[in-house]
Amino acid sequence: MNETAPRSRPWIGWLLFGAAGVGVFLLGMLASSVNDRRAESVPARLQFMQPIADYEADNAKWGQSFPREYNSWESTKHLDENTKHGGSGDRDYLAENPNLVVMWAGYPFANDFKQARGHYHAVEDVTKTGRLNEKTPGTCWTCKSPDVPRLMAAKGVAEFYAAKFHDFDKEVVNPIGCADCHDNKTMALRISRPALKEAFQRMGKDIAKASHQEMRSLVCAQCHVEYYFKGKKEKYLTFPWDNGLNVENMEAYYEKSGHVDWTHAVSGAKMIKMQHPDYEVYSHGIHAYRGVSCADCHMPYKSEGGIKFTDHQIRSPLYSVQNSCQVCHRWGEDEIKNRVQAIQDKNKELLTRAEKAITAAHLEIGDAMKRGATDAQLEGVRKSISKAQMDWDYVAANNGMGFHAPQECARILGKAIDGAQETRIQVAMIRAQLGAPEPLTLPDVGTKEKAQAFIKPFVAAQKAAEKAKEEAEKARAATKPAKVVQR
Amino acid sequence: MNETAPRSRPWIGWLLFGAAGVGVFLLGMLASSVNDRRAESVPARLQFMQPIADYEADNAKWGQSFPREYNSWESTKHLDENTKHGGSGDRDYLAENPNLVVMWAGYPFANDFKQARGHYHAVEDVTKTGRLNEKTPGTCWTCKSPDVPRLMAAKGVAEFYAAKFHDFDKEVVNPIGCADCHDNKTMALRISRPALKEAFQRMGKDIAKASHQEMRSLVCAQCHVEYYFKGKKEKYLTFPWDNGLNVENMEAYYEKSGHVDWTHAVSGAKMIKMQHPDYEVYSHGIHAYRGVSCADCHMPYKSEGGIKFTDHQIRSPLYSVQNSCQVCHRWGEDEIKNRVQAIQDKNKELLTRAEKAITAAHLEIGDAMKRGATDAQLEGVRKSISKAQMDWDYVAANNGMGFHAPQECARILGKAIDGAQETRIQVAMIRAQLGAPEPLTLPDVGTKEKAQAFIKPFVAAQKAAEKAKEEAEKARAATKPAKVVQR
Repeated sequence: MNETAPRSRPWIGWLLFGAAGVGVFLLGMLASSVNDRRAESVPARLQFMQPIADYEADNAKWGQSFPREYNSWESTKHLDENTKHGGSGDRDYLAENPNLVVMWAGYPFANDFKQARGHYHAVEDVTKTGRLNEKTPGTCWTCKSPDVPRLMAAKGVAEFYAAKFHDFDKEVVNPIGCADCHDNKTMALRISRPALKEAFQRMGKDIAKASHQEMRSLVCAQCHVEYYFKGKKEKYLTFPWDNGLNVENMEAYYEKSGHVDWTHAVSGAKMIKMQHPDYEVYSHGIHAYRGVSCADCHMPYKSEGGIKFTDHQIRSPLYSVQNSCQVCHRWGEDEIKNRVQAIQDKNKELLTRAEKAITAAHLEIGDAMKRGATDAQLEGVRKSISKAQMDWDYVAANNGMGFHAPQECARILGKAIDGAQETRIQVAMIRAQLGAPEPLTLPDVGTKEKAQAFIKPFVAAQKAAEKAKEEAEKARAATKPAKVVQR
Repeated sequence: MNETAPRSRPWIGWLLFGAAGVGVFLLGMLASSVNDRRAESVPARLQFMQPIADYEADNAKWGQSFPREYNSWESTKHLDENTKHGGSGDRDYLAENPNLVVMWAGYPFANDFKQARGHYHAVEDVTKTGRLNEKTPGTCWTCKSPDVPRLMAAKGVAEFYAAKFHDFDKEVVNPIGCADCHDNKTMALRISRPALKEAFQRMGKDIAKASHQEMRSLVCAQCHVEYYFKGKKEKYLTFPWDNGLNVENMEAYYEKSGHVDWTHAVSGAKMIKMQHPDYEVYSHGIHAYRGVSCADCHMPYKSEGGIKFTDHQIRSPLYSVQNSCQVCHRWGEDEIKNRVQAIQDKNKELLTRAEKAITAAHLEIGDAMKRGATDAQLEGVRKSISKAQMDWDYVAANNGMGFHAPQECARILGKAIDGAQETRIQVAMIRAQLGAPEPLTLPDVGTKEKAQAFIKPFVAAQKAAEKAKEEAEKARAATKPAKVVQR
C-alpha cells in the first residue's frame, strides 16, 4: 500500500501542471484579445486613415475613414420625437406661446422662432428662417458650417463678420460637421472659431491649456453660448464673458458696454436677446461641477461589433438614457425620465409666470406711452423690464428647460418674476398719474397670428420713426455749416 | 533521482491539507465573530432589558437599558454651532429679519420667534416663549413631552386639547423623548399621537401598515408637519392633508374649511401661519423618492466599541456628514457642505425676495385702508396676499432652507413672489383711486424693535375693535327681544 500511494501521486501532479498550463495559455489568449480590441481603437485607425486636406469641409470625406462617427452624425438629419420640454423636431414656439411675439416685438424672433433641428440641417435652416433680411451680416454663418474657417482664413475674420450674409450663399454649403471640432490630421479636438478663444483671452485664460475632458465641452461652447454682434458695422462676434458666466455678470457687461440688440416696438425698452447660453448655464450645474462634459451625455459612447465609438448623433440624452445617464445613475429609464421632467416642469411653471408678467409689463408701458408718458418718466421701468427679460431669456433660450443647472435657473426665474412685477407696480402708478388708475384691459394676443397682427402697427411706427430720424439727421448735417456761420 | 521525487511529494500534500485546515478554522472564527456581533444587536438587548412601564415618560428609565441611545439623546441639550442656514442654536429670527414682525402683525410670532433648540429643551422652551398667553390651549403641549400620551389617555384627547395650556404645567415635565416614538416592550417604532393617525384615516390610508423604513419618517411626522387647531373652543389638533401634502392641496383645504389663524393687524387679511411642514416638504424631495427616511440622515447609525446604534442626537446631518451623507454620496465633506449651502443660498435669495414683497404689500394695503379703502375694495388683495404668505411660509417655516425638496421649494417661492407682487400691482391701483398715485414711503422697520413699535398701535387698534365688536354683539343680543316686540 505504502508503495502504491506514492506511485499514484505523480499522475495528480502532472494533471495539476497541465491544467495550470492550459489556464496560463487561455489567459494569454484573453490578453491578446484585449490587445486586439485596443488596436482597433483610435491610434490604429489613424494609421489607416485617408489623408484629409486642411479646411476640408465635406463631412463625407472624413466619413471615409470614420464611417461610424459619420453615419451617426448623418442621423442628425432625422427629427426626434418631441419630449415634453425638448427634442429636435418641428415645433413652432411662437404658435405654442404667442406671448413671445409681444416680448420680441421689433426683433426678427417675433417673425419666426421654430424648434432647432439637428446639425445636419444647419445650413438649410439658417437660409430659410424668417429672421433673415438684407441687413443680416456674415456673422450669422459663423456657427453653421465647416466652410467658415476656410472663408475666415481667406478673407480675414473681421471682414467675414462685416460682410453681408448673402455674400457667402454659394460658398457655405456643408452643415456643421467634422472640421468644426476636429483636427484634420490627428483628430484631436480643436477650437476652430475665434470668438471662444478671444473670450478666454479677455478672461485671462489660455484655452490651449484645456484638458481633453474640458475640450469635450469647449468645442460645443464655440457656438452653444450667449453672444452678440459688436459694433454697428463690424458685427464682430463677441461673448459677453469678461466679468464671468452668470447672468448678473453678463448684465453688468452689457450695461457697461451700452450694447443694445433692439428697441422694443411696444414699450420702447432697450433690449438684449439672449442666444442659447447653454455652456454658461451648464457651467453652473452639478454635472459640470462633477467634471461631466457635454459630450458625456449628448454624445455617449456606443458599441458596434467590437468597436466603441462616440455617438455623433448629438441630441437629448433622454433618447439614449442607457448609454448616457445610466452610466452613472443606477436607476431605471422611466425613473430617470420622470425625474428630469419633474425638474423641467417646475422650471416651466416659473418660466411661464415670468413670461406672463413681462408681456403685461410691455403692454402696460405701451399704454402709458399712449397716455403721454415721457421718456424720462419711463426710463426706470424700461430699464427694469429689459433686465427682467434678460433674466428670463438666460433660462428660456438655454436648451434643456433649466435642467443643466436647475437651482440656478429657478433662482434666476424668481428674479425675473420679481423684476417684471416690480416694473408693473411702477407702471401702474405712472398710468394712474396719467389718469388711468385701473387695470389695463390686455389686448387679445392669444394666438401667434393675433399677436403678430397686434404688434404690426407698433413695428411699422417704430420703423417710420427711425427713418424720419435718420432723414432729419441727414438734413441737419447738410445745414450744419450754415448754422455755424450764422453764429 | 526517480525514487527521491515521489518520496518528497507526500510532504507537500500534507502541507496543503494542513494549510486548508488552518484556513477553514480561521473562517470559522470569523463566522463566529460575525455572529457575536449580531448577538450584540437589538434582540439580545431586549432580553436583558429592565421592564419599562406603560406611559413611562422619564427618559432616564429607558436609558438604563439603552445607555448609548439615551446618552446621544441627552446630547440634544447642547447647542450646535450655527450653520449659515440652520443648526440648533440661539438665533433671534425677528432680530435677523424684522420683516417677519410686519408679516405676523397681530399674531404671537411677531412677539417672539427664536431658533429651535434640541428636543431636550422642548418643555423649557415652550414654557418660556413669548408666544404664550392665558388663552393658549392644551394643544400646544402635544408635541413637547412623552407625558402627553398618559394625559390624553386619562382625560380624553379632545378634553386635553380644549383645556388651557397652564392646566398641565405640573404634569408635563419630561421633554420629547423615548416614549414618543417607541413601544415600551418591543422598542418598535410607534405612533403615540392621534393627529397623524387621524390624518392618514381621512386620506383613506392605514398607518398601521407602514413599513419599518416608513416609520423611521412617520414618527417624526407626528410633529414635524403643518397643523392647525380646529374649532374656536375645541382647538383640536388637525393636519390639513385631506387633499394631499403639497402647498396647493393645503391652501385648497383651508379655503374650503374657512379656518383662519388670525387677522393681519396692518392689512386686515385673513391669515394662516404654516407650522414647520417638514414631512410635507420632504415628501416632495429626491431623498423621499429614493426611500431615504428622516432618521437615515438626522439619526445616522454610529458605532461605539462593537455596538452599532442609532444616534439619537437628532440634528442637521451637516454635523455628521461622514455618518449620514457620505454613506450614499462618495464626495468629500467640504464638497457636500458646499453643495447643500449652494442650494440653500439660492432658496434664501428667493425667500428674501418674497418677504420683501409680502411686507410691502401688507404696508400698502394698510395705507389704502387709511385712505378709506373699503373691505369690498380690498377683498381680492387681502386674499391674494394671504395666499402668497402661505406659499412663502410653506418654505420658510420648513427646516432646511428648502433643501428637503429644492426644486419644489423654488417653484413655490417663485409663486409667492409672483402672488405678492401681483397683489401690490392691484393695491397700487386702489391707492391711486384714493388719491395716492405714487409709491408709499415705507416706514422704517429695519430692526426688530422698530418693527414691533410700528405694529403696536395696529395691534392695539385691532384688539380694541374686536372688544368693541364683542360688546356690541352682547348688547345687540340683550336688546334683540325688544326689537322683535317692536316689529
